[in-house]
Amino acid sequence: MREEKQVRVSNAVRNRLPRYYRYLRLLLDDNILRISSSELSKLMNVTASQIRQDLNCFGGFGQQGYGYNVKYLFGKISDILGVNEAYTAIIIGAGNLGHALSAASTFVNRGVILKAMFDVDENIVGNEINGLHIYSMDELEAYVSENRVDIAVLTVPKNAAMETGERLANIGVRGIWNFTGVELKLENRVTVQNVHLGDRLMTLCYEIKNNNKSNKDDMQ
Amino acid sequence: MREEKQVRVSNAVRNRLPRYYRYLRLLLDDNILRISSSELSKLMNVTASQIRQDLNCFGGFGQQGYGYNVKYLFGKISDILGVNEAYTAIIIGAGNLGHALSAASTFVNRGVILKAMFDVDENIVGNEINGLHIYSMDELEAYVSENRVDIAVLTVPKNAAMETGERLANIGVRGIWNFTGVELKLENRVTVQNVHLGDRLMTLCYEIKNNNKSNKDDMQ
Repeated sequence: MREEKQVRVSNAVRNRLPRYYRYLRLLLDDNILRISSSELSKLMNVTASQIRQDLNCFGGFGQQGYGYNVKYLFGKISDILGVNEAYTAIIIGAGNLGHALSAASTFVNRGVILKAMFDVDENIVGNEINGLHIYSMDELEAYVSENRVDIAVLTVPKNAAMETGERLANIGVRGIWNFTGVELKLENRVTVQNVHLGDRLMTLCYEIKNNNKSNKDDMQ
Repeated sequence: MREEKQVRVSNAVRNRLPRYYRYLRLLLDDNILRISSSELSKLMNVTASQIRQDLNCFGGFGQQGYGYNVKYLFGKISDILGVNEAYTAIIIGAGNLGHALSAASTFVNRGVILKAMFDVDENIVGNEINGLHIYSMDELEAYVSENRVDIAVLTVPKNAAMETGERLANIGVRGIWNFTGVELKLENRVTVQNVHLGDRLMTLCYEIKNNNKSNKDDMQ
């Protein structure tokens, strides 16, 4: 990144940026290099004024009416979101969810490199899942001291969540992506992103109950 | 529900209600029946004025300084979110993600009843996963015509997403919880809630990059 000027964004914009990232990537895949805020608005189902508010601070918009430079904007948002940092991740818990996540394009599409999995079940330790070696949980501290690990994806059972979170905080992992549904009380020693899938199931139920025929993403 | 007065809420509040539901449930589990907005504020890590704005329209708050009636508020929010509708759901795709979801308390905790799973793989059709029978995809239309199915949880591979979405819309399923990452173009015939896990992974990367030691839920 040449002009390294840190762009500060509000929480609301920060939460929406990944969605822009996704749509801009699809546009680039289709070789669309310019898009107006009104076209992007239709595509993403948000108002054009919202888009202008969200994106204008990043630059990349040409003359009035000429639209955004998709590549520039995509690069800018990638930088802001840390896509180019080559963050590395491990998955803790090689059950069904861990398995599903290891197969997903979720990580590679965001520049995050999956390195390994960990589990307590000695019957599967040593195996590979989707190219990832399964280590024993006993090896966690040693592994992290010898390998750069930025993110731990936590898919362990509820009763193991807190203890595992503690261990991850102690060994200096920077971020925990927490799928356990348990609130990790780590006093802000680590950045934690909690996934509560059930919250979105409830949003769906609400929409059904109110007979809204909508098509909504997580953060809309 | 006695006084059936439909409460209209904004999208932002609707998205936050499931989180209130979760915390109020934990309070009830601990037998806490009254809570002030400032206590709830500390617990949930949002401002007390936000809480008052979000919840005061539902009632359930006592005298000034006496706090919210947790049970009343929980019941009210449950009603609004459709928890008491006994919605039924099927899971389409019995792979790792479908498997993980079928085991999760996600559904039962929100009053949604899981009925069955469907898959194209004839090797697993007829099996049971976590008490759910796996039907062949060929049986989908017949099953839905004979059983009430409100929600379909879509965990099929990307290349099967659109076709399966079409079929679900045609047979009159009311809501699709879409884990495929593919945008279903169903022209608002069905309510669709899209899960984009990668969006939240990016939020986590952003927080790491900016060295924010935060602990955030999906919609915060």
